[in-house]
Amino acid sequence: MKITPAKTSRRDQIDFDQLTFGQIFTDHMFICDFKDGAWQTPEIVPYGPISIAPSMSALHYGQAVFEGMKAYKDTAGGVWLFRPDENFNRINRSSERLSIPAFPKEYFFEGLNALLKLDQNWIPTDAGSSLYVRPFVFANTAGIQASPAKEYRFMIICSPVKAYYSGAMRVKVEEKFSRAAPGGVGYAKAAGNYAAQFYPTGLAQKEDYQQVIWTDASAHQNLEESGTMNVFVRLNDELITAPTSDSILDGVTRKSILQIAKDKGLAVSVRPIAIAELVEGHASGALKEVFGCGTAVVISPFEGFGFQNNYYPIEAPTDSFAQMLKETLVGIQYNTLEDPYNWRYKVL
Amino acid sequence: MKITPAKTSRRDQIDFDQLTFGQIFTDHMFICDFKDGAWQTPEIVPYGPISIAPSMSALHYGQAVFEGMKAYKDTAGGVWLFRPDENFNRINRSSERLSIPAFPKEYFFEGLNALLKLDQNWIPTDAGSSLYVRPFVFANTAGIQASPAKEYRFMIICSPVKAYYSGAMRVKVEEKFSRAAPGGVGYAKAAGNYAAQFYPTGLAQKEDYQQVIWTDASAHQNLEESGTMNVFVRLNDELITAPTSDSILDGVTRKSILQIAKDKGLAVSVRPIAIAELVEGHASGALKEVFGCGTAVVISPFEGFGFQNNYYPIEAPTDSFAQMLKETLVGIQYNTLEDPYNWRYKVL
Repeated sequence: MKITPAKTSRRDQIDFDQLTFGQIFTDHMFICDFKDGAWQTPEIVPYGPISIAPSMSALHYGQAVFEGMKAYKDTAGGVWLFRPDENFNRINRSSERLSIPAFPKEYFFEGLNALLKLDQNWIPTDAGSSLYVRPFVFANTAGIQASPAKEYRFMIICSPVKAYYSGAMRVKVEEKFSRAAPGGVGYAKAAGNYAAQFYPTGLAQKEDYQQVIWTDASAHQNLEESGTMNVFVRLNDELITAPTSDSILDGVTRKSILQIAKDKGLAVSVRPIAIAELVEGHASGALKEVFGCGTAVVISPFEGFGFQNNYYPIEAPTDSFAQMLKETLVGIQYNTLEDPYNWRYKVL
Repeated sequence: MKITPAKTSRRDQIDFDQLTFGQIFTDHMFICDFKDGAWQTPEIVPYGPISIAPSMSALHYGQAVFEGMKAYKDTAGGVWLFRPDENFNRINRSSERLSIPAFPKEYFFEGLNALLKLDQNWIPTDAGSSLYVRPFVFANTAGIQASPAKEYRFMIICSPVKAYYSGAMRVKVEEKFSRAAPGGVGYAKAAGNYAAQFYPTGLAQKEDYQQVIWTDASAHQNLEESGTMNVFVRLNDELITAPTSDSILDGVTRKSILQIAKDKGLAVSVRPIAIAELVEGHASGALKEVFGCGTAVVISPFEGFGFQNNYYPIEAPTDSFAQMLKETLVGIQYNTLEDPYNWRYKVL
């Protein structure tokens, strides 16, 4: 790997108290190009614009996938990633579905380690803050034939962030629009999956919701995801999340929560959740909590949901599972709790 | 509009007998940026690379849509577009679904006219050749917050092309993967729709097919589209195509064929087509023709289809509807036939 350090750092020009998610990037970026049938020697270079052809196929045919990870700095200055193997495996699963060549594991980890070492001073240390790490890959071939590209570019860029969402969220159960088809690309972190959500989400926001809850495209009866999050439902003391499928993302936070919840002795179910169950649970009082989870947001409690022109508020319980699970998860991520799972990955 | 002409033309360096679809671009390109809530003054500049931020949101969240048009040169040197209003309306319908601001009609047509005037010598005149015109728009905001971008770029680039597909095609009926969900973005020319097709198409190509026929995502029973084409089926003397929907593109070639076929006195039906009808029609002899259509391909007859491990060959009939319709359509496009519909749009 070739490393070209930045001549000066922009670090001191940044007001870390005023970070907007994903706006500020660190001094360096990782680049690796695929051409002539192989991934070339990776490079780390100063962060900055890149030059593309207007016919670059990713802009026309959407071969582009990404990952979301976070690097955490503990009070002793140690730098950690959380289950990076999961992100590595998932970006290659996403790539396979979009006909993008798999990225080599050694390049991924060498790149992450070198980049975080160079830009370690960019990792914020306030509670809830972290360095958001964005690996992504896109079709970089000049030319607009509608077939898989011959050239790709894999990059990693990093952005210091505070917590993603502020406060509890109101979510609307979507019954008209769909996020993903069975047999489609919903399980992949494909760029096109996100743009497709903006319009329905915008409509919900006009009704004073922050996000939609996606339901199955066939009948709009079962809960799938919400925004960029997997969703958990608590009915009495049972914690439920939908099984992953080809239309539901296999979230790293989701699977970590499942493990922690089981080990804390909670009754955990992975099964389809009908919207009707939420409505019935609201009426009977069995519905205690609904929350979203993901790398960016960690865990975000929903303060209520809208369905068929009714609004169902959910009062936060005093024994919140969301809160308890978040404390454990965040404790492992920030190295303030023991990690019986070996999920923490030491960078520095 | 500001026009910066290229200092020299690359036109004479191009071997027009050896054109690969979408590889060679003309001397100029049209650019118009959206920022501060408005489309800025458009420009035409020499074709060349553009600079983007690595965090440009189109690469991460897929807000990108496009159109496909062709400019034709007749034997007297006249330059024509075919129903450009349709493409203009459709790119704005696509944009709306992806939360991209609508593009002004006057900019679209001023841009097309000026660009084609500058690059008119690039329009090939061989039979079946044309100048493929690619308007596209993408989210150009630097930053990876998963929400609609604040900046966009609208561009038009042009590429001299020969016919898109060569020869008849074998197509495979897809029963596992899906192109689009009801309630999704399948009707939009969204970049992400195309990348999602490459993997299943690649699997079909390994079985010696050229394309897949997409079926409905719910039950895989009804025919939707094929590759980048709408599909027509002829059963005895009835010409059938599926109704447009939120999962089927409203193709300009499709609607033009429908009109021409009606006016030629053919029995035309717009209704769902079950794959079972194709199989039954093959057994009874009623299935005479299946063909794809689109701007790039014009009309492409299918020489057979694969379904559930059987292959059903279709022998081209002597009174081919596909051939007759294509001749009329192409005659209108190239100004060799009368245009009772006012579909031709004179550029020069």
